[in-house]
Amino acid sequence: MSLVRVHNFSISLDGYGTGEGQSLDAPFGHAGGRLHSWFFGTRTFRRMQGEEGGSTGVDDAIARTWADGIGAEIMGRNKFGPQRGPWQDEDWRGWWGPNPPFHTPVFVLTHHPRPSVEMDGGTVFHFLDASPEEALRRAREAAGGLDVRIGGGPSSVRAFLAADLVDHLHVVVVPVLLGRGERLWDGLEGLEQRFRTEAVSSPSGVTHLTFTRP
Amino acid sequence: MSLVRVHNFSISLDGYGTGEGQSLDAPFGHAGGRLHSWFFGTRTFRRMQGEEGGSTGVDDAIARTWADGIGAEIMGRNKFGPQRGPWQDEDWRGWWGPNPPFHTPVFVLTHHPRPSVEMDGGTVFHFLDASPEEALRRAREAAGGLDVRIGGGPSSVRAFLAADLVDHLHVVVVPVLLGRGERLWDGLEGLEQRFRTEAVSSPSGVTHLTFTRP
Repeated sequence: MSLVRVHNFSISLDGYGTGEGQSLDAPFGHAGGRLHSWFFGTRTFRRMQGEEGGSTGVDDAIARTWADGIGAEIMGRNKFGPQRGPWQDEDWRGWWGPNPPFHTPVFVLTHHPRPSVEMDGGTVFHFLDASPEEALRRAREAAGGLDVRIGGGPSSVRAFLAADLVDHLHVVVVPVLLGRGERLWDGLEGLEQRFRTEAVSSPSGVTHLTFTRP
Repeated sequence: MSLVRVHNFSISLDGYGTGEGQSLDAPFGHAGGRLHSWFFGTRTFRRMQGEEGGSTGVDDAIARTWADGIGAEIMGRNKFGPQRGPWQDEDWRGWWGPNPPFHTPVFVLTHHPRPSVEMDGGTVFHFLDASPEEALRRAREAAGGLDVRIGGGPSSVRAFLAADLVDHLHVVVVPVLLGRGERLWDGLEGLEQRFRTEAVSSPSGVTHLTFTRP
């Protein structure tokens, strides 16, 4: 059965999945790299950058499961880029350079569809104005029986959780207080009752939470 | 040196230190016992109830440090009782029966002072309309060189954190989403920069966070 999965989704102690003030130079706004510094040193992240080396401890062991068995990703438009409203610049092809780390179809949720963009390495960006259910139907068609990853940002993950479409949620709680930005947990009272939860802290200072179906 | 300490302060994953709708029958509102179920089974909690037995694992080892070296507590009025505004009923002597577990002077912050109340076992409730700084000065006088505990609720802990008066903060993150209530972390952006933080998850499913002075 094709599952819907969220991996390596980092939030601050006060629940923000991204900071305030996203821009070309600051994909996570005033959060900078603070939500993901636990990740940058891992072998998984290095490989996503086409580099060698990196740590292979607890953080890496958990992080590296993100790509296994994934046939498509769905992401919100703000994960794809900093533009808002009608596209001023269709040359924008995401933050990830010519060979993005996804290597699958990627469905970008936006109220402003535009033609699909084929990248190196198997990543194809499609642009959809669709509900979570409809986007998932399209992603599952493209995934060929494999799982679908919800890649973020916070409002996209939240929308799929609210619609009870997520089967595996991995959240990384980072011991910083951002104070402002976009929250993951709003409007999800009682979410844990639909899942089995586990928590494990890592020597890096973060805590890995998993929500899986009982 | 007399330190200011917070212990066993439980919050939900979405940051609520208490639920919505406190009443005589529901000290933590709609949260019920969910924020503290990790604590109820410990030997520390049993002893606070005058009972024997209880677990002696990780949760208990961390929880039991709460009373050691404490000479006074400061608490908010909503921790003391469910009444709001001018006291309708000065017979109310807290939730804890004739012999409360504090065994020290306890300063209750309220805009409606009333005469002090002496309980069995050394607990004396004093009622203060004071700033955090002034309340701490009074509590330190009463503590005789020992430490002062900030007992909660969320808005009291937050006020002392905002005033940078806390030296040791122990927060327990419980994997539930309350959705509403009173948040601990609001307005504390960057708090972690003044502390050394540690996180350790426990087999009960909670994560213990400590913020200590570097």
